[in-house]
Amino acid sequence: MRDIAVFSGSAHPELAAEICAQLEVPLRPVRTQRFANDCIEVQLQANCRERDVFLIQPLVTPVQENLVELLLMLDAARGASAARTTVVMPHYAYARSDKKDAPRISIGGRLVADLLVAAGANRVLAMTLHSPQVHGFFSVPVDHLHALRELALHFRQYDLSNTTVVSPDLGNAKEASHFARLLGVPVAAGAKQRFADDKVTISSVIGEVAGRDIIVLDDEIAKGSTVLELLDKLRDLGARTIRVACTHGLFAGGALKRIGDQPDVLEIVCTNTVPIPDGERVPKLKVLSIAPALAEAMRRIHNGESVSALFDA
Amino acid sequence: MRDIAVFSGSAHPELAAEICAQLEVPLRPVRTQRFANDCIEVQLQANCRERDVFLIQPLVTPVQENLVELLLMLDAARGASAARTTVVMPHYAYARSDKKDAPRISIGGRLVADLLVAAGANRVLAMTLHSPQVHGFFSVPVDHLHALRELALHFRQYDLSNTTVVSPDLGNAKEASHFARLLGVPVAAGAKQRFADDKVTISSVIGEVAGRDIIVLDDEIAKGSTVLELLDKLRDLGARTIRVACTHGLFAGGALKRIGDQPDVLEIVCTNTVPIPDGERVPKLKVLSIAPALAEAMRRIHNGESVSALFDA
Amino acid sequence: MRDIAVFSGSAHPELAAEICAQLEVPLRPVRTQRFANDCIEVQLQANCRERDVFLIQPLVTPVQENLVELLLMLDAARGASAARTTVVMPHYAYARSDKKDAPRISIGGRLVADLLVAAGANRVLAMTLHSPQVHGFFSVPVDHLHALRELALHFRQYDLSNTTVVSPDLGNAKEASHFARLLGVPVAAGAKQRFADDKVTISSVIGEVAGRDIIVLDDEIAKGSTVLELLDKLRDLGARTIRVACTHGLFAGGALKRIGDQPDVLEIVCTNTVPIPDGERVPKLKVLSIAPALAEAMRRIHNGESVSALFDA
Amino acid sequence: MRDIAVFSGSAHPELAAEICAQLEVPLRPVRTQRFANDCIEVQLQANCRERDVFLIQPLVTPVQENLVELLLMLDAARGASAARTTVVMPHYAYARSDKKDAPRISIGGRLVADLLVAAGANRVLAMTLHSPQVHGFFSVPVDHLHALRELALHFRQYDLSNTTVVSPDLGNAKEASHFARLLGVPVAAGAKQRFADDKVTISSVIGEVAGRDIIVLDDEIAKGSTVLELLDKLRDLGARTIRVACTHGLFAGGALKRIGDQPDVLEIVCTNTVPIPDGERVPKLKVLSIAPALAEAMRRIHNGESVSALFDA
Amino acid sequence: MRDIAVFSGSAHPELAAEICAQLEVPLRPVRTQRFANDCIEVQLQANCRERDVFLIQPLVTPVQENLVELLLMLDAARGASAARTTVVMPHYAYARSDKKDAPRISIGGRLVADLLVAAGANRVLAMTLHSPQVHGFFSVPVDHLHALRELALHFRQYDLSNTTVVSPDLGNAKEASHFARLLGVPVAAGAKQRFADDKVTISSVIGEVAGRDIIVLDDEIAKGSTVLELLDKLRDLGARTIRVACTHGLFAGGALKRIGDQPDVLEIVCTNTVPIPDGERVPKLKVLSIAPALAEAMRRIHNGESVSALFDA
Amino acid sequence: MRDIAVFSGSAHPELAAEICAQLEVPLRPVRTQRFANDCIEVQLQANCRERDVFLIQPLVTPVQENLVELLLMLDAARGASAARTTVVMPHYAYARSDKKDAPRISIGGRLVADLLVAAGANRVLAMTLHSPQVHGFFSVPVDHLHALRELALHFRQYDLSNTTVVSPDLGNAKEASHFARLLGVPVAAGAKQRFADDKVTISSVIGEVAGRDIIVLDDEIAKGSTVLELLDKLRDLGARTIRVACTHGLFAGGALKRIGDQPDVLEIVCTNTVPIPDGERVPKLKVLSIAPALAEAMRRIHNGESVSALFDA
Repeated sequence: MRDIAVFSGSAHPELAAEICAQLEVPLRPVRTQRFANDCIEVQLQANCRERDVFLIQPLVTPVQENLVELLLMLDAARGASAARTTVVMPHYAYARSDKKDAPRISIGGRLVADLLVAAGANRVLAMTLHSPQVHGFFSVPVDHLHALRELALHFRQYDLSNTTVVSPDLGNAKEASHFARLLGVPVAAGAKQRFADDKVTISSVIGEVAGRDIIVLDDEIAKGSTVLELLDKLRDLGARTIRVACTHGLFAGGALKRIGDQPDVLEIVCTNTVPIPDGERVPKLKVLSIAPALAEAMRRIHNGESVSALFDA
Repeated sequence: MRDIAVFSGSAHPELAAEICAQLEVPLRPVRTQRFANDCIEVQLQANCRERDVFLIQPLVTPVQENLVELLLMLDAARGASAARTTVVMPHYAYARSDKKDAPRISIGGRLVADLLVAAGANRVLAMTLHSPQVHGFFSVPVDHLHALRELALHFRQYDLSNTTVVSPDLGNAKEASHFARLLGVPVAAGAKQRFADDKVTISSVIGEVAGRDIIVLDDEIAKGSTVLELLDKLRDLGARTIRVACTHGLFAGGALKRIGDQPDVLEIVCTNTVPIPDGERVPKLKVLSIAPALAEAMRRIHNGESVSALFDA
Repeated sequence: MRDIAVFSGSAHPELAAEICAQLEVPLRPVRTQRFANDCIEVQLQANCRERDVFLIQPLVTPVQENLVELLLMLDAARGASAARTTVVMPHYAYARSDKKDAPRISIGGRLVADLLVAAGANRVLAMTLHSPQVHGFFSVPVDHLHALRELALHFRQYDLSNTTVVSPDLGNAKEASHFARLLGVPVAAGAKQRFADDKVTISSVIGEVAGRDIIVLDDEIAKGSTVLELLDKLRDLGARTIRVACTHGLFAGGALKRIGDQPDVLEIVCTNTVPIPDGERVPKLKVLSIAPALAEAMRRIHNGESVSALFDA
Repeated sequence: MRDIAVFSGSAHPELAAEICAQLEVPLRPVRTQRFANDCIEVQLQANCRERDVFLIQPLVTPVQENLVELLLMLDAARGASAARTTVVMPHYAYARSDKKDAPRISIGGRLVADLLVAAGANRVLAMTLHSPQVHGFFSVPVDHLHALRELALHFRQYDLSNTTVVSPDLGNAKEASHFARLLGVPVAAGAKQRFADDKVTISSVIGEVAGRDIIVLDDEIAKGSTVLELLDKLRDLGARTIRVACTHGLFAGGALKRIGDQPDVLEIVCTNTVPIPDGERVPKLKVLSIAPALAEAMRRIHNGESVSALFDA
Repeated sequence: MRDIAVFSGSAHPELAAEICAQLEVPLRPVRTQRFANDCIEVQLQANCRERDVFLIQPLVTPVQENLVELLLMLDAARGASAARTTVVMPHYAYARSDKKDAPRISIGGRLVADLLVAAGANRVLAMTLHSPQVHGFFSVPVDHLHALRELALHFRQYDLSNTTVVSPDLGNAKEASHFARLLGVPVAAGAKQRFADDKVTISSVIGEVAGRDIIVLDDEIAKGSTVLELLDKLRDLGARTIRVACTHGLFAGGALKRIGDQPDVLEIVCTNTVPIPDGERVPKLKVLSIAPALAEAMRRIHNGESVSALFDA
Repeated sequence: MRDIAVFSGSAHPELAAEICAQLEVPLRPVRTQRFANDCIEVQLQANCRERDVFLIQPLVTPVQENLVELLLMLDAARGASAARTTVVMPHYAYARSDKKDAPRISIGGRLVADLLVAAGANRVLAMTLHSPQVHGFFSVPVDHLHALRELALHFRQYDLSNTTVVSPDLGNAKEASHFARLLGVPVAAGAKQRFADDKVTISSVIGEVAGRDIIVLDDEIAKGSTVLELLDKLRDLGARTIRVACTHGLFAGGALKRIGDQPDVLEIVCTNTVPIPDGERVPKLKVLSIAPALAEAMRRIHNGESVSALFDA
């Protein structure tokens, strides 16, 4: 069998290191150089020839820099005769650009998928894409993981007898429902209702939350506005305690601090698909590692074992 | 400017005729032949050379027959030196196959989009795709219309002072909300809640429906189970009158009769994106024509005028 | 070496089962589901990852259904990370659509070849294509088998000392000549002559047939008109006995009964590239299995052994 | 409408000049340079930008030189922003390589078609391709002309009351039959019969030829062996006079002289799809020009008029 | 004729405005939005349908941001049914990444060319690419301008009787020689000589420079190290006065100030292919506009006139 | 591991035989047939199925014949199910056509690269391409060797204490400098200076050559004009002895004799990338074999070992 060769871009080297530790393979060095004209040159500093190459790069801030770096790495691996190149993309920011809701815009999620393939991606390993249709934007095989088991494992340490999982909106309710089943608890969901002027938004919550210990679950938290709005509603409805959980902790614009400052929020839980600078972390934050899940998927991809089986039972 | 040449497949010749009447161009003849070995041969029986060719074919039952016929027409137009070939596809059945919710299945909506392009489609004119992300499955330009103005025009004949638009589920709520704004009335939505065993489904309705005149709006009605379930709920909640409206009236498995048999349903309104055999029609059914809208879009596509402008104001 | 994984579409599961028995590998299960909107969903129900996947599907009636099912299977195998996907297509109905003999038609044999590749076919295993040029319609490697050895083996049970092989027309004469050499007997051929009005057709037969035991050999029999016309001619010319043989027994429109009803026809021999419903079978029909030949070719494809060598000696 | 720009490669400048005279457009100059390393550089010496470019180049001896020159011209036209580039290829030598009749050979007719498209051909204008299936080797539109009307016009000058058209083999019989209908005379055909050892070939002739004035018609004559064999047979059968006609007069290896030396051959007629050096011409040779037919097809292609209509009536 | 529609990315709106003023067409508005997750969305705010679209975007700092924005604009134009999209790229930074001078790096100039085409570029208008071979990296037509006439026009205002043009290295000497001919003056060039240890570099100057008025000409100046080294050498060799000229004034890392601070440098001349912030400009800097040249090329591209003719005489 | 299968085209069978001897693998037979119509048919006469196929063919005179033969071989290998096909192209003549220095010409180096890929090349093994940018013309991986070590090994047999390597022009100086480092001697270079009328060329030489033993090094020698001009200059400057070395010895138009006739040229050294007919060889000529280097690279490509490592140290 071809050997595995794992490289990391600049986006999240800590995650890459952790994955390699799990896989018990070395993280191969990459030299990234920026020229005076702001162009990047990336050198993969280990033999790729006939290797099963994995490039780890979540598309996180700075997205454009990380994307172009990834495209250069893909092309380098192809030119270096990699047998197969898999993009390990724990966060795919452009997945949110998944529809043409205004004339003459790009559907960025499809465009970037095409660019990755044009640059040499043979397959993609993704996690919790914003909508499941984004899978269909790729013309190469995608393994699409989610982090619900990791999140569930964390929450099982608590007494869950009075707990309800709440999805901030009904678009994400299917995932929340799946998560609630994993925990053996009921589910509820915020419902946004836009009146005729398309400006005022009032949320109701479907399902019982009064007196309950709430776990708010979303796929990602960026500016956190929706979550904060939901928290207000949950307070109004008499929720007992609140924990906030998500897969992708983008926490833009001080979101982490703003949510953490809510006194009734006991904990904010996310995974490490997105790097969070030490300086922005707050005491209530708990970051779970999805490195073991990604490593296991990579091992199965490498060995030709079923990845979907990873999610059974 | 290149001349326009419009052809119709076997799926819905009445709609094609109506569109051509609107456009004041002839519907060009097509000869479809089936050989002893069940293969189809399609001949476009008018000069396509340097023409702006439009092929009208909704992907409706029998879907596979209509799809392959359309692919053969596309290839014939390409081989006959069409300057440009636009698929006019008022209903795209495979759009529902938009995600990989089980291992080792095809994302049919993406595959069929690729097949259409492989066979020679230069652009697509679609109507009310099941999810907006399906737009991104196509690698050629798509003009994506909806039928809300046609539906709104119909309902404005009634006294709407006590009316509420209800979406059967929250996935379609955005469209219902848009529709309600067109009518100047409030919106409500059914909410499906799945409990932990994933089997029992109980619907609640968000928004006021008691004593209201209801217009149930969905993108399509196939077997009609969801609508029937919602009707039960609306009755429980004390709705005054009910009308049912949708863009795509597939009405499979006797759905039309089952909904029409509900005594409190005053009217079932759909458009003619999908042909409905005379024998299946019921007295309560009202079919609105989207031929004028498709014709106007085709005219603008042909003349290079903005199609998005068609929807402003 | 990668493992083999064999799946069958709906067209001919008996043949697939027989091939797998020959190969001593399991026939992997496939779940085919038809939705209310007539769309098909196919699930390959065994791990395809890095496997050497074979999809068995002759393009037989209903051709369009079987074609789209096959395209969905191909895409599913690709999305499921198959290492290589080979279409095993014992009958390729669209191969007859191999030229543009009227303006503005599709060359269906080329189009369908392109669709198969667009959906993910990496190679094709075909049998007795209608014309050898059809091989060139595919942009992927094709292994092109014929069934003459199977047919010859059958006829060697008879006393062949007074036998002549007759091709119904000279287009197929090369194959008949090859077959006659295998049997060590002479060859003759019907010759169609169209006079100036392009309507009347009179057949002559080149070669001696008077008093001979005739084996009529054609690549396929659909409606059987050509064969029946030839039988008339052979009777006129004083043939002693007649047997009819072909590779692809389509037998459309009651052809089997009509040929079987000819009293001087002793036997009708075909292979099982096309399924024949039990209810249509006649006592004179003898169906030979090409499963061993296909299985051996698949074994060689899988192992990287020469398939052309299969036909030497 | 975009202007037309016609260029000629080195293969047959006389034909190109004649076509341009017919079209009343200038033949644009081309500079072909050969470097010390034997590489060719072709410069199209007139503005191609947004022009409707036609490149005239039959693939005749030296085939490889002419092919590579044509590929360079195509790429140059593309790089020079031609709006559309049509290859006018009155003879396509590689069309004879249309099947894989030995293992591990290329199907050259398909490969060269792909190369032309890879180099920038948008469409092809061909004449009398060796087999009609070769049309399907091209992934771009092909207009496929034949020269039968030109040949018929020539022979109508003679008294045809006792004439029969004879095809040397039955593969070409359809074309001969079409030609006979144009002349209003009967058709006959040579039939090759290969016995079991695959070596001895004996020709019979189907149809009456005794005492007739014969026009032998073939698509092309290369070494002329088949024609010479047929002439022997016709003599045996008592034909009265013989004329030989073909579209493509390749006349390799002294074929022209050998056929011309037959005393009972009154005339050899071909078209100018292939250039014939003055030194090789014989008195019995009559070369008809297909320049008017090609020019008319080019005019219709340029103006978007039907080319198939060119052949009606 | 299709209308022209010109849009500008964020890289250099001043240049775009100037080009549109020259062309006397409006610069169409573009809305660029950055989401909380750092993704960009670009909306072309004018009808593109069947228009001849030009997107003006030099790839300058920040290169990755500008590149991704350009790719999104290209895709938006394609999705909005532009008839043709031309990238106007006055500076192509990645052109310097034109060879694989280390293992396992990308040839960025080729990769980015492929990405532009994958995103929808139909043609490119470039200026003074770093090496002429970069033209061959594009699979779409490229019009490749240079700015020598603009530079020459500027210097003709001076007394050139004692002037010599000096290229900093011999790689750029062809361009300098062309420039000297335009000015009617002699040319000289710096020559870099690397000794065996590959570290020490000593420049000599070929051609007479003592007592001459020097115009140093390079294609681009980034950090300016080569130019500063040459200035030292020119001083040693007794040059009388020095002016520095280039097409692309990148002036990274304070290069403008460092060169401007050289007392014997009378003037620094560049073009506006690259924007220079007001705060970095120095009194000795003179920026020439290539907007008229680009506008004229765009006019010719739009009208189908020869662009190469632009450079004759 | 897949077996290796090596085939040779007609261009240079001696080199292929030598490479195979080095690799200790058989050179597989190829049957090349030329038909009466000048078309070529190539049959690879050994099983290619799942093999790692190498096709050895330098693009040398006759270039067009050799190119088309190579394209046919590539397509044959693909159709014969080769697992991977590598073109071993020790000389790539079209690499000199690397820029568009006149309007409406093809960039032949890019076009031929695309043709090779269109015909089925999966990778290329090249040697000393004319410019390093040509690497970027290929869309498949290229291993780019040079022959400097072979040349250096040869010259180390001499006393090099008084030796200088001279590059005829500065474009090739980098390679000469690399070569000089290998020999541990200084480097010099000819410098061409074109004055304003673009006609007169005078060469100077940068670096010390008086009294030195000179090794003139160029990448290729075709007509030899540049070298002969340099020899004049070296004589003028008092060089002591002269040896001439190059990788590609094309020696067109009697170049070998003309250089060999120079009395002060002691030796002409080239490699066997290009075949030199025995009749053209001169006594001063020494041909070094690069077969071992190519064989070693092929061995590493086959085994997935680093080829760049081949050049370290």
